[in-house]
Amino acid sequence: MRIDILTLFPDMFQGPLTESIVKRAVDKGLVEMHFHNIRDYSLDKHKKVDDYSFGGGAGMVMTIQPIADLIDKLKSERDYDHIIYVTPDGERFNQKIANTLSLSGNIIILCGHYKGVDQRIRDHYITMELTIGDYVLTGGELAAAVISDAVIRLIPGVMSDETSALTDSFQDGLLSHPVYTRPADYNGWKVPDVLLSGNDAKIDEWREKKAFERTKQIRPDLLED
Amino acid sequence: MRIDILTLFPDMFQGPLTESIVKRAVDKGLVEMHFHNIRDYSLDKHKKVDDYSFGGGAGMVMTIQPIADLIDKLKSERDYDHIIYVTPDGERFNQKIANTLSLSGNIIILCGHYKGVDQRIRDHYITMELTIGDYVLTGGELAAAVISDAVIRLIPGVMSDETSALTDSFQDGLLSHPVYTRPADYNGWKVPDVLLSGNDAKIDEWREKKAFERTKQIRPDLLED
Repeated sequence: MRIDILTLFPDMFQGPLTESIVKRAVDKGLVEMHFHNIRDYSLDKHKKVDDYSFGGGAGMVMTIQPIADLIDKLKSERDYDHIIYVTPDGERFNQKIANTLSLSGNIIILCGHYKGVDQRIRDHYITMELTIGDYVLTGGELAAAVISDAVIRLIPGVMSDETSALTDSFQDGLLSHPVYTRPADYNGWKVPDVLLSGNDAKIDEWREKKAFERTKQIRPDLLED
Repeated sequence: MRIDILTLFPDMFQGPLTESIVKRAVDKGLVEMHFHNIRDYSLDKHKKVDDYSFGGGAGMVMTIQPIADLIDKLKSERDYDHIIYVTPDGERFNQKIANTLSLSGNIIILCGHYKGVDQRIRDHYITMELTIGDYVLTGGELAAAVISDAVIRLIPGVMSDETSALTDSFQDGLLSHPVYTRPADYNGWKVPDVLLSGNDAKIDEWREKKAFERTKQIRPDLLED
């Protein structure tokens, strides 16, 4: 899998996508990450990449030319399964979309900044618009990092124990059950007896019950789907 | 405002919270960011911070002691408005919560990793559990970065033009309208005439209509609230 990230701030990806599991996936050759600075493609003599909004109003808009030229170049080099724009007004990214994207060959993720990109880029280039949640971020960079992380960890071979991803929250439509580790008694705070019983059937039953209770309490909407 | 982030991977914050608007807020003294490596507080001779899950199953669980000692230390130094745990099975973070948190004095954000933290930390220390969306990440680090970014940009004085944050998606319960910038004609792709009309009333009307249409099409749930 190859992910091309188009951004005005490539340095923002320094930490999140060069550490931990993503780094391991890259090192193993399971995923290629490429970061492109949109500014490098600006034909403006001052390398300008934004301009005022037509019709007025606060906030700058990212111009078409550098983004269009960069995407055209990438598309001339290889086929892409998805050209994603991360934006607060996109479809809500979720685990199901992460599963789907993890089966892709090549994807592009365009990070918006300021008031976003010129609508014509969205109309003519973008094939999928995603938001990671109902809140506004400084830019699309963190959202692109979140999507990349959620997708990359699902690629077979990336996580050390594949069952570990399959037992995550959301994969079975429920939140996960509570987890405990040693010591069994910490300053009088005790682990539930059942988890120390060695009775696998009882433990499974307890966990399912707790997962269901927690989902019902915190996220009843997940049970309605 | 002061944000203390508790993590096993402090380097993951290198890019996202040391660039762009967050950096500007820190430089202006509007926010203090402190990153604490949980491992530094482990009393285990091998600095261990995780252990197997009681009751079995894939994935490691973060142990109580280093986290408890670190939070105790921070709480002895100052009062905290919120001690937040970022976890897929938390309440859904949204713009309203971001607005509330931006009024806080001091907050702690604990980043889970692996299968999460021992439930007893959640029961005895955590005052707020948040998820940034219905998907699973490698760890809580990106989620903590997302929450910090969304909150910090709302602190007065952080963004250059305060109205810019107020006209974002979600602040008025609608997605934002399409934006356009120069050139008015790019390879035959044209900006809607109304935006070039100079008629502010007509432009506002068009934008409101488009914001409503887009919300109705992509996120009808936002109109129900």
